[in-house]
Amino acid sequence: MTQLEQARQSTISREMRIVADRESLDAEFVCAGVADGTIVIPANVNHRHLEPCGIGKGLRTKVNANIGTSSDYGNIETEMAKLRAAESALSDTVMDLSTGGDIGAVRRAILAATRLPLGTVPLYQAGIESIGRYGSIVAMPADYLFDVIEQQAQEGVDFMTVHCGVTLKAVERLKKSPRVTDVVSRGGAFTIGWMLHNSKENPLYEHFDRLLEITRRYDVTLSLGDGLRPGSLADASDRPQIEELLTIGELVERSREAGVQVMVEGPGHVPLDQITANVKLQKVVCKGAPFYVLGPLVTDVGAGYDHITCAIGGAIAAGAGADYLCYVTPSEHLSLPDPDDVREGVIATRLAAHAGDIVKGVKGALEWDRAMSQARKDLDWQKQIELALDPATASKGRSQHDTKGSGCSMCGEYCAMELVADYLDTGRDRC
Amino acid sequence: MTQLEQARQSTISREMRIVADRESLDAEFVCAGVADGTIVIPANVNHRHLEPCGIGKGLRTKVNANIGTSSDYGNIETEMAKLRAAESALSDTVMDLSTGGDIGAVRRAILAATRLPLGTVPLYQAGIESIGRYGSIVAMPADYLFDVIEQQAQEGVDFMTVHCGVTLKAVERLKKSPRVTDVVSRGGAFTIGWMLHNSKENPLYEHFDRLLEITRRYDVTLSLGDGLRPGSLADASDRPQIEELLTIGELVERSREAGVQVMVEGPGHVPLDQITANVKLQKVVCKGAPFYVLGPLVTDVGAGYDHITCAIGGAIAAGAGADYLCYVTPSEHLSLPDPDDVREGVIATRLAAHAGDIVKGVKGALEWDRAMSQARKDLDWQKQIELALDPATASKGRSQHDTKGSGCSMCGEYCAMELVADYLDTGRDRC
Repeated sequence: MTQLEQARQSTISREMRIVADRESLDAEFVCAGVADGTIVIPANVNHRHLEPCGIGKGLRTKVNANIGTSSDYGNIETEMAKLRAAESALSDTVMDLSTGGDIGAVRRAILAATRLPLGTVPLYQAGIESIGRYGSIVAMPADYLFDVIEQQAQEGVDFMTVHCGVTLKAVERLKKSPRVTDVVSRGGAFTIGWMLHNSKENPLYEHFDRLLEITRRYDVTLSLGDGLRPGSLADASDRPQIEELLTIGELVERSREAGVQVMVEGPGHVPLDQITANVKLQKVVCKGAPFYVLGPLVTDVGAGYDHITCAIGGAIAAGAGADYLCYVTPSEHLSLPDPDDVREGVIATRLAAHAGDIVKGVKGALEWDRAMSQARKDLDWQKQIELALDPATASKGRSQHDTKGSGCSMCGEYCAMELVADYLDTGRDRC
Repeated sequence: MTQLEQARQSTISREMRIVADRESLDAEFVCAGVADGTIVIPANVNHRHLEPCGIGKGLRTKVNANIGTSSDYGNIETEMAKLRAAESALSDTVMDLSTGGDIGAVRRAILAATRLPLGTVPLYQAGIESIGRYGSIVAMPADYLFDVIEQQAQEGVDFMTVHCGVTLKAVERLKKSPRVTDVVSRGGAFTIGWMLHNSKENPLYEHFDRLLEITRRYDVTLSLGDGLRPGSLADASDRPQIEELLTIGELVERSREAGVQVMVEGPGHVPLDQITANVKLQKVVCKGAPFYVLGPLVTDVGAGYDHITCAIGGAIAAGAGADYLCYVTPSEHLSLPDPDDVREGVIATRLAAHAGDIVKGVKGALEWDRAMSQARKDLDWQKQIELALDPATASKGRSQHDTKGSGCSMCGEYCAMELVADYLDTGRDRC
């Protein structure tokens, strides 16, 4: 039985209990969230040594790091290094988006090495292997795609991005609504290329029940991908994007009916004043399914610093109710990331997630900040370093310059908190 | 006559014309904004070689970089290096917040070297020099503070942070409303220490007319500082902060009546769902005076990455109407920044400002993103690098790995935009 099926029977699984413990919540709360679909626990029955992680309403906003090879760069060693960078920066999950080299071997190495939930986009492997087998991506037989999905599920992949909402109807809407950057999702591009070349409906939409049958068997969580996500601010929230979302909303209900856990992926490049609307719309249309956003990036011109444009959008999205943030690294739009990029991306996105958690009222979020500020007021540097989101970097920054006082070298002997403590004590008993 | 006095007579000054040209706006628009106080142009009549910069409604959101020595670190050479870093990263203004070494000499060196508007906090020099002259900061005679203000004005400082809203009444409210981090503003701490030690009202409030008389003479723009800004999320938007804001609002009106340009400084550490409210409140209470925000930082735990927590808050603030963002560097809360920190802080804050400008509808903002996305769609890498907010970093990221295709090494030969272009053309004439 999937986590969803167990939860519907009010059976609290080992995974639900672990998720509850990790978030200091009641297992009953987590179970109820899984039952109504507002929480997912991506936990393939074949993934050994998994540390289960919950994603959804009432839980801490989670962060994903994308790793994987491309046809230009990467192999098992480079991806292991990125995996270690993601883990040490405390990413909650990883996705292997490999499109180069032996895609299956890279994935199996990652699965063997990590306790984090692992996601993939099976279409990448199926499409790219089709070049060797059948001559091109668009020559891929639909059966081959389902074979790859089954293979990956059998190996233990916990969640899969499937671009099921890219339908012929959505492509028609896309043609009627010209964009600056037509399609920027690789999976979306593979799918649309296949559909237009073969004049056929998207097999993941047409044969959605077949997908549900496989994923239910292994309890693979579906991540309904946004193949028509906007790749530029000018294209945000347009008709093709929303058309796809409506279809995804329908597929959420079908997934749940089949006992398959499901979440929904979202944009993309979005002006900051449209982010909240996007989150609220997804929540209604997709009946509260966890929302997994890529960014959103609040400007198109941040190349080299897109971990920051992503953190801006991600924080707003998380604050508005997004449950899961996919990181963006400083190398986005420019090149495949290195381990350092992975680290910077995870940290920036964790900051965004936490900023969102504070306003979402996630248990313990504001208390963390309060403890840090108390340590700051107390000039307790050891505690400040320990409480920093990334202690290693905070420690390095602290030792940048020597300081003679008990404050830091920014204010030296004129630390505001020290100065004012001499004259002001707002402790209640002394006022 | 000050810019404000000239604007009221509908005289378009040289500075107004330059500001209008730099923003591709009509000089009449800028003149009207200066006249009604929604735009300021910090331009001391004694600042030679100044490139005037407008701050306020309808203009591009501006970015300030704080430099300056502390008692622990820094001298003229280190501050010149930081100034160059700020300028090359395209900061719009700089503030010299020196509190160590020969404060006057550092300032004069910066003034001689830069064409950017320069701001200071005269209380730092006055208070710290009082230690040598009178034995302590709190022994500072009020006259000495005004002498320093006059000296700095005479030298050509374009805008000054003055914590005039820290009144005895505000201190009373602070005592009644205990905080986690009482006072984190250095100027606020100097002021409160002085007031409590001497049992006297803040001289900058009590003798505000004297301040206006000096600043009017040199057309120094007042930046009414927030000495009671929250230094932790737990303290945000509390009664002491708002009490100070109300007084500042009254002082805005008195400044304008006296013909003195004025802007208002704002928080601080603020949960992201309180930022818009803070901006809207300031705009009403301060009659549309330009709002200059420090951050806001959306979490307290970002030490080492506070340029990112600042970018998140700054983008939201700018989008809500803030006009001017003070950067925060990665070394905030840890140490005095180095030139590299200055650079990172300016870039992150420029991203935030631009993300805000897009939703504020600032002229040319969205067009920049559209041009970038068109270049991305065209796989025109030279143009993408040129259009990046920081071309040098984008260029470096681009060359991180070789790529065989016309895309980048992230997707290699499977670039979504390339793939889909083979199958989809949304050009109207071909659909």
